[in-house]
Amino acid sequence: MKFCSHCGSAAPAWRIPDGDTLPRYVCANCGTIHYQNPKTVVGCLPEWNDRVLLCRRAIEPRHGLWTLPAGFLENGETLEAGALRETAEEAGARVELGALYTVISLPDINQVYMMFRARLLDRDFEPGPESLEVELFAEEDIPWGDIAFRTIARTLRHYFLDRKLGAFPLHVSALFKRSPREPGLQAAA
Amino acid sequence: MKFCSHCGSAAPAWRIPDGDTLPRYVCANCGTIHYQNPKTVVGCLPEWNDRVLLCRRAIEPRHGLWTLPAGFLENGETLEAGALRETAEEAGARVELGALYTVISLPDINQVYMMFRARLLDRDFEPGPESLEVELFAEEDIPWGDIAFRTIARTLRHYFLDRKLGAFPLHVSALFKRSPREPGLQAAA
Repeated sequence: MKFCSHCGSAAPAWRIPDGDTLPRYVCANCGTIHYQNPKTVVGCLPEWNDRVLLCRRAIEPRHGLWTLPAGFLENGETLEAGALRETAEEAGARVELGALYTVISLPDINQVYMMFRARLLDRDFEPGPESLEVELFAEEDIPWGDIAFRTIARTLRHYFLDRKLGAFPLHVSALFKRSPREPGLQAAA
Repeated sequence: MKFCSHCGSAAPAWRIPDGDTLPRYVCANCGTIHYQNPKTVVGCLPEWNDRVLLCRRAIEPRHGLWTLPAGFLENGETLEAGALRETAEEAGARVELGALYTVISLPDINQVYMMFRARLLDRDFEPGPESLEVELFAEEDIPWGDIAFRTIARTLRHYFLDRKLGAFPLHVSALFKRSPREPGLQAAA
């Protein structure tokens, strides 16, 4: 933040406001405190018999890698409405949402993922502008090395394990930035 | 938004950016798109034997009314860390968090509430700067007419009913703006 969005002054300072405990952008001219908070990413895991629907990303970050339909929750939306919208936008797909399934905090990038289970209603899906391909995958065909995000890989791993166990409880967890010394899939970092 | 926080221009326009589907503040000078997204409110329902801990608000909105400890999730925090911080700040209380219990979308005010169950670890609680009082309430003493927010009343109602039923499943729901013609508690609107 280089300028105050309220008064246009070039003086927003990064400091702890009086009576607060964390630093914020505070305008030295008009006093406005500019709060910044994590964003919610909402999406779903669409099932079709024993297969799940993945989208190959046509945009950065992670262009060309596979993901579940998901994106930023918008003002004015419920979580469910956001998950349905993202699924329509990215996969051209209609689903019936099931239970909330994974909730994953990403404190290093100020996001919280919230993924629902979902039942694909028909096979008339097609890639939206943000996807290169949309495809159904059986467990043995999941491109584990080409999954776009760790949140999505974790959601898929929970799902295939829970399917074997026969129950799909809510999974609440967090993911932290990898240590630079930790080996691992760069693609799914 | 009156000024662009990136270039200081007084020209942010409310319009749908190219390739987007929703209106945003877009700077006509530098082209920056200023996204605005819902905020997460995170908190908990602290239990002590058959009683629950409520805080009486010392700040607006809903000054003087009762609530569970909760507040905006901050950048850099997990949901759990946010719930623990708010409980410490508002109630001076230490809890052990349990399962995520209510998730409530409030699309009209761009918020999502996420409340955990929690076990109060000791009785050394005390009001923080944002609370007038902190007190333990048995079900029959809950001040239902003086609960600050509908999300909190809903969470408490789920809790006391689930306690009778003997199970505490996750409750995912939404609350919408009341019609002006609908009667009801103004205080808990």
